[in-house]
Amino acid sequence: MLSKNIIVFVGCLFSQICLAQTDQTSDLKTFRSAESNQPGKLFPQVNNEGKVRASLYAPNASKVQLDLGGKKYEMTKNEAGLWTGESDPQDEGFHYYQLNVDGASIPDPNSRYFYGAGRLGSGIEVPADDEAFYALQKVPHGMVSENIYYSDLTKSWRRCFIYTPASYYENNKSRFPVLYLQHGSFEDETGWVNQGKANLILDNLIAQNKAKPMIIVTDNGYAFKPGDKEATQKGQGVSIFEDVLIKEVIPMIDKRFRTLADREHRAIAGLSMGANQTMRIVMRNLDKFAYYGGFSGTSNYPNTDVIDPNVFMDGKFKNGNEVNNKLKLFWLGLGTKEPAPFPKSVGAFKAMLDQQGISYTYYESPKTAHEWLTWRRSLQNFASLLFR
Amino acid sequence: MLSKNIIVFVGCLFSQICLAQTDQTSDLKTFRSAESNQPGKLFPQVNNEGKVRASLYAPNASKVQLDLGGKKYEMTKNEAGLWTGESDPQDEGFHYYQLNVDGASIPDPNSRYFYGAGRLGSGIEVPADDEAFYALQKVPHGMVSENIYYSDLTKSWRRCFIYTPASYYENNKSRFPVLYLQHGSFEDETGWVNQGKANLILDNLIAQNKAKPMIIVTDNGYAFKPGDKEATQKGQGVSIFEDVLIKEVIPMIDKRFRTLADREHRAIAGLSMGANQTMRIVMRNLDKFAYYGGFSGTSNYPNTDVIDPNVFMDGKFKNGNEVNNKLKLFWLGLGTKEPAPFPKSVGAFKAMLDQQGISYTYYESPKTAHEWLTWRRSLQNFASLLFR
Repeated sequence: MLSKNIIVFVGCLFSQICLAQTDQTSDLKTFRSAESNQPGKLFPQVNNEGKVRASLYAPNASKVQLDLGGKKYEMTKNEAGLWTGESDPQDEGFHYYQLNVDGASIPDPNSRYFYGAGRLGSGIEVPADDEAFYALQKVPHGMVSENIYYSDLTKSWRRCFIYTPASYYENNKSRFPVLYLQHGSFEDETGWVNQGKANLILDNLIAQNKAKPMIIVTDNGYAFKPGDKEATQKGQGVSIFEDVLIKEVIPMIDKRFRTLADREHRAIAGLSMGANQTMRIVMRNLDKFAYYGGFSGTSNYPNTDVIDPNVFMDGKFKNGNEVNNKLKLFWLGLGTKEPAPFPKSVGAFKAMLDQQGISYTYYESPKTAHEWLTWRRSLQNFASLLFR
Repeated sequence: MLSKNIIVFVGCLFSQICLAQTDQTSDLKTFRSAESNQPGKLFPQVNNEGKVRASLYAPNASKVQLDLGGKKYEMTKNEAGLWTGESDPQDEGFHYYQLNVDGASIPDPNSRYFYGAGRLGSGIEVPADDEAFYALQKVPHGMVSENIYYSDLTKSWRRCFIYTPASYYENNKSRFPVLYLQHGSFEDETGWVNQGKANLILDNLIAQNKAKPMIIVTDNGYAFKPGDKEATQKGQGVSIFEDVLIKEVIPMIDKRFRTLADREHRAIAGLSMGANQTMRIVMRNLDKFAYYGGFSGTSNYPNTDVIDPNVFMDGKFKNGNEVNNKLKLFWLGLGTKEPAPFPKSVGAFKAMLDQQGISYTYYESPKTAHEWLTWRRSLQNFASLLFR
């Protein structure tokens, strides 16, 4: 009898909340639970215009806000203590957000959590017209493996994730090319799978025969000499990610996985900070890589001035022919809504490439800013051109 | 100059908060940041007695609580708007917790998140005397791979994680035995790695030659016929996890991984609900498994009455000799501080085994309740006995 009473009691609680929710969601037909929610969570929701509606049970709070896209939207409380609030229409794609409860910035208890802005926080998926390319489809799926390793260079534990395509598991002999793919600032090695859906993008591309089956490795772009982390956080340190990647990660991947371990079968790309980092890495290691992708970033960032190829990056772009001969693909991408200084900074870099007669592919993601849909689309386009 | 000003401004903000924190943490020497925190987060902290101290910046909140171990601890606010609160001493090991802010139950923005109690929430790691066995040590590490699959039985996307030991990657030929390992109620397929540290436990055991190298597969124990999910949540449905495991997961694992695909090299275990589930599965599929582990649970749960082997589980334990001949290991474990009905329920089950002359191994985890340290220790003990 006790347990029955508990069930009835809990049932009442839930129906009270549900009824309360229904009051404010008469337009449930257009508002739908976000794909980025935890299993079974009704809120947050997104409507056809890309408006986001969040909800939080906080009966004794005096002020609750939805903090999304750089703007704070006041939420309102109903009699049951449930706060609900709605944003302006958002761009298509993935956005970080948080809730503010009486001055506390907190993750929304209903969303899944994503590492960005230097912490695990909430994310909201606004459906995009072209979302099929990164959706979970009935196609053969690869796997994503977490690999923990101790770095002798940083004297610390580090981690990378490895995407292996479905065909990797069809036999124990085939070898595969590898793309090293880096996140942006204040993100980490989880970003390209959790926010970027890199695994699903490749699963879909490969199933349609639009990309060669490949391995993707995502590592953490923050790497410091022992004792140097604090200095680097103050902007005084120097990342040794290039060393970690070249001396530790690549040899480890080539040992653990059936890779094609030469430059002709190795690509490197990154987004924002990662684009900047990987451009430096590729130009200093042309014996290791034959393909480069820079998503929303170039190594002249944040500078927008005309670039002198004789001095920029120690003259790495001085000899255009040599760059053309070495790199089978030099790829740059940008969203059409990216803020300053990205358009002008990338523009100055492109002008330098033009001046030097360096071949490159340039892609623009329609109606997206410095956010993950730009990078998902960039990956889709870039990956389809690799290892051809 | 602008960026310099910003740095100075941010510096002031942080030192204000830091100073405020220092006021309340004069005993920082005994309180240390928890291992379960997000990178770089100072709070929550744990001291030598297992007291947990949490912190939240919520300047306008009127009531903030630390909600841990079934008890709510009032937190207090300092002048800077920072709330701090401290719990009673906790058991060693991992505990779920949350913060309550003016009536809202929220994840602590500083902790990592773990799926338990039906949602992603905060967790706190209280150091244990024997923590070395699940610590990240300088030993060869295996990998944990996420595998997404479509189930034709549930007509839904599902996911499992596969631990492969370090030696799996030493060549492309060796084959390995497999342990299928299940989570508890309101947890999911992520639990055994995120909370249970199953990968680190096996890495450590294997490095010390205390366990045979093995593959571990963790799937989701909730599986329903299409359209039946709602019925099951009301307690009316029937889980078809056994079908999914036997007909879909095991064949998939045997295809994708280099397994030893016979009963002599296949074990199954689970915790709490998972112990109950996997006991039913093993006894109905003795042609598929030769080893069973029940961590804090048996299939008579929640019953504590004397068990009649002639009727219990359709007489599966009626013939003790047959069970002894078929199962190379029948393993049961329990924490010494487990609440009712676990001790009596497992006790009744053991008494039945004794009566039937069925051999089993029984392990007790000292000073732990129905929580993850009990199950980490259970896995350590159980895994060391497998495939011998």
